[in-house]
Amino acid sequence: MRGVSVLAVLGRGVLPAGTPFIRADDLGLSRGDGIFETMHVRQGQPWLLAEHLKRLFLSADRMDLTPPTEEQLTQLAHEACAVWDAQTEGALKLVVTRGPDGENEPTCFATIVPISEVTKAARDTGVHVTTLAYGYPASAREDAPWLLGGVKSLSYAINMATLRWAAARGYGDALWLSSDNFLLEAPTASLVWLEDDVLFTVPPTGSGILAGVTVQHAFERAGELGLSADYRMINLDEIFEVDGAWLLSSGRGVAPIRSVNGITLRSSDIQLRELLGF
Amino acid sequence: MRGVSVLAVLGRGVLPAGTPFIRADDLGLSRGDGIFETMHVRQGQPWLLAEHLKRLFLSADRMDLTPPTEEQLTQLAHEACAVWDAQTEGALKLVVTRGPDGENEPTCFATIVPISEVTKAARDTGVHVTTLAYGYPASAREDAPWLLGGVKSLSYAINMATLRWAAARGYGDALWLSSDNFLLEAPTASLVWLEDDVLFTVPPTGSGILAGVTVQHAFERAGELGLSADYRMINLDEIFEVDGAWLLSSGRGVAPIRSVNGITLRSSDIQLRELLGF
Repeated sequence: MRGVSVLAVLGRGVLPAGTPFIRADDLGLSRGDGIFETMHVRQGQPWLLAEHLKRLFLSADRMDLTPPTEEQLTQLAHEACAVWDAQTEGALKLVVTRGPDGENEPTCFATIVPISEVTKAARDTGVHVTTLAYGYPASAREDAPWLLGGVKSLSYAINMATLRWAAARGYGDALWLSSDNFLLEAPTASLVWLEDDVLFTVPPTGSGILAGVTVQHAFERAGELGLSADYRMINLDEIFEVDGAWLLSSGRGVAPIRSVNGITLRSSDIQLRELLGF
Repeated sequence: MRGVSVLAVLGRGVLPAGTPFIRADDLGLSRGDGIFETMHVRQGQPWLLAEHLKRLFLSADRMDLTPPTEEQLTQLAHEACAVWDAQTEGALKLVVTRGPDGENEPTCFATIVPISEVTKAARDTGVHVTTLAYGYPASAREDAPWLLGGVKSLSYAINMATLRWAAARGYGDALWLSSDNFLLEAPTASLVWLEDDVLFTVPPTGSGILAGVTVQHAFERAGELGLSADYRMINLDEIFEVDGAWLLSSGRGVAPIRSVNGITLRSSDIQLRELLGF
């Protein structure tokens, strides 16, 4: 069993990882009505914690959910990390649900699990991805905030189904393609690519995608690789012309995209992975 | 506190309703990765149980999830009903999640809660609804099964957000409008309307909506009201020309739609509510 390796519950502290503590009427369970953040645990510390909390508060605001304070969440993350083996790479997940139905009291907890060997291997071997339709035109969620664009909610059934469909066809991941032919993001990762000396990603504004915390950090430090960083929409044909492309997320870090729909991409030797310490 | 009134867990039987029994790594919680059905409990019995189970198995198939058997689920529903006050109208929810991560063992439970007074009142008073964009064109999910059209998954964050947006604007419910201007469904109910002597609803095939169990039952019995029943797409303008419109769902039963976007609809005196025993 993989299971949860560390569990810390707000207000209760660290509990045995397999402790059942969620009720049937918790809206996080019954309605996927909650938010989360996942971050890398390195040397026993949550990496980019403040940045992840900033995005969590944005998700909470868009979900009309009152989260615990930054101080409470920071303390919870550190409580969990304190009982985690500092030599092991981990993924720390902070979850805030709307809590039991009718009680107006969010449920909040943190878990840490080891980064899987498959995930680590993809940093070296890269990943072959397929595109799968996302149904929406890229701008659909911009003026419809109830569609929760840019929100990292617990309602990931479509994300998981997309990954299952990709895996069933022999692909390691998927990129969602908008109905107007723009590449958006992967179900649990952001798309980054290189053109000449510029790193690009999809603009969160106007596309409904989740603003990548790992991407943002890479963008802030792109100068260290002699690169600049910018945002633009990219259509499917264009990805075959770029100088390199990657999936970025907090757990996997950086995984080169080897091919899209079976067509090999150019690969780049820029030291993105090393820059981010994966 | 409202909370859960009855809880029965597959393999464990009836437990005190507030028992925490779900782990942090249950994929139903962490990914909204599970399915459910809600049905009406009348005279202590689950109404249309077999029909709801049929839809649950369809959801399971589309989610590549192995549910318990029909016999197990039927028994679980009856176990829950056995400790429910037969004089009280209830909503029985059957939930099947993908279970704890990596264990390949679904979590399955049933809850029963009372039908709220607000819900009951809407059967008489009706409901004022607003339309809210759904982003997709009506056919978007037809050839993209990973978007989970027609699946009743636990990932209801968008459904809940849509209801919050409607409520914040003073509406009792919302109807999703496709980007090509077709009315689809409400976040937790189906749309039914009357034209002359024909009851209509939106065709599940080609629209991605959930096939309504209560609607299907009404359609099978429409002849008792001297009506026939049929399926067609309806655009927003057309709803103002129909002879009556209703929201149907298992808990509320039948609620007349009084207005859409502030414009009053015609009302009909057909005995739809009485036909369905609400």
